[in-house]
Amino acid sequence: MTISGRLAELVVGTEPAALPEATRTATSMHTLDTLGCALAALGLDAVPYVRASYAERGVSGPASVVGQAGGLPADMAAMVNGALAHALDYDDTHAGSIVHVSAATVPAALAMGEHTGRSGAEVLTAIALGNEVSVRLGRPAGAALHARGFHPTGVCGVFGATATAARLAGADAEQTRNAFGIAGSMAGGLMEFLADGSETKPFHPGWAAHAAINAVWFALHGATGPATVVEGDRGFFGAYLRGEEPDLSSVTDGLGERWLTDEIAFKPYPACHYVHAPLDALSAILDEEHLGAGDIAEITAFTDETGVILVLEPAADKAAPRTAYDAKFSIPYAFGARVAHGAVGVETFTDQAIGDPDVLAVAAKVRYELRRYSDTGGSFGGGVRVVTTDGRVFENELRHQRGGAENPLTDADVAAKFTSNAAVALPSDEVARLAAFVLGMSDAPDLGPLAVLRAATVKGGGGLSSRGGGPPRPGPGR
Amino acid sequence: MTISGRLAELVVGTEPAALPEATRTATSMHTLDTLGCALAALGLDAVPYVRASYAERGVSGPASVVGQAGGLPADMAAMVNGALAHALDYDDTHAGSIVHVSAATVPAALAMGEHTGRSGAEVLTAIALGNEVSVRLGRPAGAALHARGFHPTGVCGVFGATATAARLAGADAEQTRNAFGIAGSMAGGLMEFLADGSETKPFHPGWAAHAAINAVWFALHGATGPATVVEGDRGFFGAYLRGEEPDLSSVTDGLGERWLTDEIAFKPYPACHYVHAPLDALSAILDEEHLGAGDIAEITAFTDETGVILVLEPAADKAAPRTAYDAKFSIPYAFGARVAHGAVGVETFTDQAIGDPDVLAVAAKVRYELRRYSDTGGSFGGGVRVVTTDGRVFENELRHQRGGAENPLTDADVAAKFTSNAAVALPSDEVARLAAFVLGMSDAPDLGPLAVLRAATVKGGGGLSSRGGGPPRPGPGR
Repeated sequence: MTISGRLAELVVGTEPAALPEATRTATSMHTLDTLGCALAALGLDAVPYVRASYAERGVSGPASVVGQAGGLPADMAAMVNGALAHALDYDDTHAGSIVHVSAATVPAALAMGEHTGRSGAEVLTAIALGNEVSVRLGRPAGAALHARGFHPTGVCGVFGATATAARLAGADAEQTRNAFGIAGSMAGGLMEFLADGSETKPFHPGWAAHAAINAVWFALHGATGPATVVEGDRGFFGAYLRGEEPDLSSVTDGLGERWLTDEIAFKPYPACHYVHAPLDALSAILDEEHLGAGDIAEITAFTDETGVILVLEPAADKAAPRTAYDAKFSIPYAFGARVAHGAVGVETFTDQAIGDPDVLAVAAKVRYELRRYSDTGGSFGGGVRVVTTDGRVFENELRHQRGGAENPLTDADVAAKFTSNAAVALPSDEVARLAAFVLGMSDAPDLGPLAVLRAATVKGGGGLSSRGGGPPRPGPGR
Repeated sequence: MTISGRLAELVVGTEPAALPEATRTATSMHTLDTLGCALAALGLDAVPYVRASYAERGVSGPASVVGQAGGLPADMAAMVNGALAHALDYDDTHAGSIVHVSAATVPAALAMGEHTGRSGAEVLTAIALGNEVSVRLGRPAGAALHARGFHPTGVCGVFGATATAARLAGADAEQTRNAFGIAGSMAGGLMEFLADGSETKPFHPGWAAHAAINAVWFALHGATGPATVVEGDRGFFGAYLRGEEPDLSSVTDGLGERWLTDEIAFKPYPACHYVHAPLDALSAILDEEHLGAGDIAEITAFTDETGVILVLEPAADKAAPRTAYDAKFSIPYAFGARVAHGAVGVETFTDQAIGDPDVLAVAAKVRYELRRYSDTGGSFGGGVRVVTTDGRVFENELRHQRGGAENPLTDADVAAKFTSNAAVALPSDEVARLAAFVLGMSDAPDLGPLAVLRAATVKGGGGLSSRGGGPPRPGPGR
């Protein structure tokens, strides 16, 4: 049987009760976290483009959209919610595959779950299955997709979202396999946004979920796709990683026995994962030594090669981010914010904040040193060396970033992150009700209470773009 | 200025009157041909999946869909029409880029033209601009995208359709450049369907047009995309052709002066371009020597490396196509049909036809010989050697397939092809009226007469799929 055939059998054949308790709990926490990220993004008026463009079309449907009173067809709702979920770069990530996992699967699941009237247990199971597929496809590629210029969140995420949508649509194994085959021709997502800080990245999981739902719908009506879409010479790996020989055995090894959802990392900061470990390492030194901006002569960040590409080079751009979104991919900027203001949060990455001279003055003092972390099994490890103006030197390092499996956030941490994020767009009683619903979703007969997402509101406080844009661009973000 | 910036200036800055007369005429003929291909595909009930899946959603909009009474939002209409336009593999192709050009741009143009109420001259200009962009992006890649497993019609077509849609949406140069940057993250299309004859390929231009319209709408609302989406290290060529160094100067050389629409080839047969020259070479021998099936001992096809990959290997699959769609990518099958039945047409590639033992008996006698054609500047050249049962040997070769710039079809040939194709789904008086409208589109105030497309009907006669499919699969295609 082909790889997509085996994945399809998993998707169709897994009973909700077959998920280990830990996986079910982790899936609930990731669902909660994803919704929180989307709500905070809405509250900050991030990526208003999709909502605005859809609103013009006068189209409606059964699926809830964060911040929009009317519903949309499932594929369109998934696009809006997926873009919001990833807009702050605050959503979860699987280290081994570098896929932002839930930002594609949760929107696909909620949209298809509402469209088909599924129970909470079914929706959670579909998310776990989709996450499993995204992660398993991303793992053999590791950083190779990134090195090629592809964003795994888009190009792997479309398969995960397809698994989720197929499950909830009630597709059989053959239809699901065909949907994977079709989805392979819809995989996309370039990392070129790094060149100028433009904002295509949030679209990737949204578009993946949008594509996935369409692939599933087409397959339900008899459309076929290649059975060898994963391993074929002109299939996903053959095309996207032509010239490499990724070991695809790991895609199906232990399938249905070992659940990788448990490995997916939560983010404590709304910035690229490669920022996290160096930032936590720095924070510990600053707190312990009571250092302020005036004490810092130089900070050297430690990261690996992918980290250099993503968050440290080109040095001039990273020292003075061009857009709020760009700032999320800058260690120097994050260090500057942490030193100058004592904290890094959603308010760090706004148009207003990125020009702060106090922050930029520190950012100018940041250098880097290449270290190897991934070979040691660490997940997004990193560290710092701080040299003070009076010549003292402090070093600190996290082999595993905080939030990953080796250095986890507690469920309470994740719930607190949700509460803080959701409160940007919802009143506190609604936030609590939504949290209770998501954490009890295993027993929910349907997704009715998700309608509260439609009542979420933009609070302003800094759109995340500072570039381009025509007349209809709403929001204060300039 | 970046490449996408220069393309955006062309898209925004070209007056309809600036198009050379030959380019305008060629664009009209390609538009006519594309509609004819879509109508014939509808009539044969090809790719019913998209229409059926959209019909369920209960969504409507201003754009006409071939064979559907109600209109759809422009992006959905473009998906349906694009899939239909390419479903028979009978639509036009630019040899140097191997892009099926108009199947993405014409649907995007009609949908956005109806959405925005543009004049016929504007719509034709937008198609010419989109075709120019698709071809110019495909040219430096040549066969390299195919060799990697990517379908240029999808991955280049999304940029062409973006140009077309941006023009008609009235985007300014910056919005258009941003739309290109966004569209780069939506580029997709794998060639893996060749492994089992599944039917993803028709989706590629449809999905490209669908994505393009969304990219443009997002950009109109201020979404940004990387300015270096074409040439950047993590941009289109950097990612899709990583490790090669395509010469990108040809993308912009002579931009706005030399129009490549004039080079786009029409197809005389509803099959892969690599089938055409060998098939015409064989036809000439059969006609001249009055040879029938009983006279043929062996036929050797001449083609180049890409031809071998697409239409001759694996030999066993090509000798007995597994699906009607698969048959379009088989020289042995096409030769068999020509020898056994004296002609190759839309009826050659149906579920009923592909099992014909007379055809398969000839197909089993087909071999191939690798020759070089592309280096000579030929477009899809090819030939044959026929050995008869009484030991005679005949050879014939076309350096340039019929239908291309070097060996063109006349406008009358293209019009006749349209008439024959459109008649599969429309009454003859409607066919004539539609042809008159398209050929006079330069003077049309709007696209109102396109509403006739909505009245086109499925005539049955053999769906093009013979695989997979769940219960809701309509049509006789089994």
